[in-house]
Amino acid sequence: MRLRLSDLRTESNRAVAKQKKSVEIKLDDLGDWRRTHYSSNLTPELDGQDCTVFGWIASIRHQGNITFIVIVDKDGLIQITAKKDEVGKDLYKKVQTLTTHTSIGVKGVLKAIPKAPNGVEVRPKEIKVLGFASVNPPIPLYGRKLPGLDKRLEIRAVDLRRPTAQAVFRIRQEALKAIREHLLKNGYHEIHTPKIISSATEGGAALFPLLFYDKEAFLTQSPQLYKEQLVMAFEKVFEIGPAFRAEQSRTLEHLSEFISVDVEEAYVDYRDAMDRLEAMIREVVGVIKSRCAKELAMLQYEPQLPATFKKFTYNEVLEILAEHGHKVEWGEDLSSAALAKLAEVNPSYYFIIDWPTQSKPFYIAQKKSDPKLSESFDLIFGSLEIASGGTRVSSRRVLEKKNPLRQIEQNWVEHRTEE
Amino acid sequence: MRLRLSDLRTESNRAVAKQKKSVEIKLDDLGDWRRTHYSSNLTPELDGQDCTVFGWIASIRHQGNITFIVIVDKDGLIQITAKKDEVGKDLYKKVQTLTTHTSIGVKGVLKAIPKAPNGVEVRPKEIKVLGFASVNPPIPLYGRKLPGLDKRLEIRAVDLRRPTAQAVFRIRQEALKAIREHLLKNGYHEIHTPKIISSATEGGAALFPLLFYDKEAFLTQSPQLYKEQLVMAFEKVFEIGPAFRAEQSRTLEHLSEFISVDVEEAYVDYRDAMDRLEAMIREVVGVIKSRCAKELAMLQYEPQLPATFKKFTYNEVLEILAEHGHKVEWGEDLSSAALAKLAEVNPSYYFIIDWPTQSKPFYIAQKKSDPKLSESFDLIFGSLEIASGGTRVSSRRVLEKKNPLRQIEQNWVEHRTEE
Repeated sequence: MRLRLSDLRTESNRAVAKQKKSVEIKLDDLGDWRRTHYSSNLTPELDGQDCTVFGWIASIRHQGNITFIVIVDKDGLIQITAKKDEVGKDLYKKVQTLTTHTSIGVKGVLKAIPKAPNGVEVRPKEIKVLGFASVNPPIPLYGRKLPGLDKRLEIRAVDLRRPTAQAVFRIRQEALKAIREHLLKNGYHEIHTPKIISSATEGGAALFPLLFYDKEAFLTQSPQLYKEQLVMAFEKVFEIGPAFRAEQSRTLEHLSEFISVDVEEAYVDYRDAMDRLEAMIREVVGVIKSRCAKELAMLQYEPQLPATFKKFTYNEVLEILAEHGHKVEWGEDLSSAALAKLAEVNPSYYFIIDWPTQSKPFYIAQKKSDPKLSESFDLIFGSLEIASGGTRVSSRRVLEKKNPLRQIEQNWVEHRTEE
Repeated sequence: MRLRLSDLRTESNRAVAKQKKSVEIKLDDLGDWRRTHYSSNLTPELDGQDCTVFGWIASIRHQGNITFIVIVDKDGLIQITAKKDEVGKDLYKKVQTLTTHTSIGVKGVLKAIPKAPNGVEVRPKEIKVLGFASVNPPIPLYGRKLPGLDKRLEIRAVDLRRPTAQAVFRIRQEALKAIREHLLKNGYHEIHTPKIISSATEGGAALFPLLFYDKEAFLTQSPQLYKEQLVMAFEKVFEIGPAFRAEQSRTLEHLSEFISVDVEEAYVDYRDAMDRLEAMIREVVGVIKSRCAKELAMLQYEPQLPATFKKFTYNEVLEILAEHGHKVEWGEDLSSAALAKLAEVNPSYYFIIDWPTQSKPFYIAQKKSDPKLSESFDLIFGSLEIASGGTRVSSRRVLEKKNPLRQIEQNWVEHRTEE
């Protein structure tokens, strides 16, 4: 039987209650101490070896003349067992002053112990106190039941020590890595475009204005027009970086600042873009499943992929919604309520294609067969729009004609060499 | 003998002179045409195969009843040879209307020809005009002699078709990729921190103010304080993203917006940071040399690495400068002139360590042996500062004491749990 994270919860609470404010502790220097093992490197086979480990104290339990300390490092937990008759008076006294969330280094000997995390504990010879926690977080960090988001955000840096929080961040990192790998492997060139711009990209609204020296400027909503220009040299480009939108509605679907994955390619149309997106998502989900099995288990989530990403036209979607008693005026965007209704029919990934031309930006091409419709798509996951795209207008004349309506500065298009 | 880029230059100029403004050309649709080969995939062994290629016209040369078109795609050049008696009247007529920088697709047959780029040319059967260049860039894009930067920036999107410009971008991409690979491989977690902040990170100056809804906010100068908080959970983190500085001096060493590589690690000091930096740069330079040999040759540049990255203390640097007749007041930063002088002694990578505490941010630790000096470094390449860092202050009390001087909002440190 191994120590579980939930066992730490009571200990942590007890420690909080015991502690007094403003305890004075002299901090040790790191000096020449360097880590020899992360928690993930510890196995019973290392029994008898010397080690230096570091971490933050997750729990302390005093039991007669033995003190059990569990520290957490970036990979997990390590149990430190200090026996009074083994460590000597001075070190044992120091151990008694330690508090949860204090940062320590431990030099000691590894000992195989079935009950300890990873089956190993450390018998300390020396301990350094590198940071001292005189006040403990007002919320328990371990265990299943979480306090509200507001409380957690108040102490976000410490809150992120929670294993489930870390699992989310590790999956996020692997997802971005898999996206980048997929795009690089397929010949896309990674770019970084300016975030401070002199005019709007997607239309006039939703911009954050700033003072660039003595001039007004804005934060980019997307690298759209930059990447369109860059395909004229690089053909296939992508950017992973921040985008900024002064959204007026505060919902879970709207963020003022977010990391955006932008892809652009020459000599293809919106169907190729959808194929690329579907292939990329399939690969990313596969990678996450294999590289983050532990994290997914911790979050009790298993990503599902449909056999194909279905494609519904905007007109079909309006019919489906009408059948379900949800009326949408032709030309209107789909509300959160409409998307929630659609999620009942299609709970996973699907595309909505051929949106009304009037509802898409000026650079999206209209359909030859029906100019009221555009060669465009949104990718939906459940009730969430996660991507959108479309065929670009390639005629300079058409762009110039549509452009003034959107109040985009002329200089965005004046150096396009195509007609 | 193969066609050289410099040969294209004269052609390009001639084409510019010939062209009239506002030529009317009906654009073709991409339809179901898709590329079968990039220029890089073409080899004489493909003789006789069908192909579909795309690109922008780099040159057109009419020679009796034959027209030679060279197009450029993301990987290089492709020669298209249209013979009047082979392609038929209609297609030959269409070929005569083409202009340089026009974007075309070509379906045809590959033919091994020693003189063509890659030893292959395309004999066209059909050509689509996907974008038409009625005006050509006022500067030649090929050839060694470049026009001024201002002129090139005016038509930057087209200017980036220059092979040497592309070489710079490809090396840049590979460098960032190698940096990321090095850090991920060594257990660093990739993070993305907010770029809109409510207060300064490095001090009060050099910030761009913006309007965040109805509040004043700023663009981040660096992810410094965020990454320091995040090591409390992840221990080893890095971010590659934009940083913004309202620099008052406009020199080659100062940018208002740039991509910054930020690394942070717990339980180490500034010497470890220097070791990591040196190891990373050695790996990155090695990767560039092997993956970008072609691009380096094109730029006629060979990266050099010194046997070790020497470490000079700030005090030693002042002595060296004094010996060379360059006086710097103790505590002052090194001017561009001082760094240029040092570059004569150390033309490659070297560290300057132990800077005056007063000249470094509040979160940099002072040296135990001499509190006037700090555990800090700058990494210099020639006369350019390319990185800086230092040991962090780990005592909450010390941070709080130094903090007000720098006018950092209290909430940046109030939730640190360490003393």
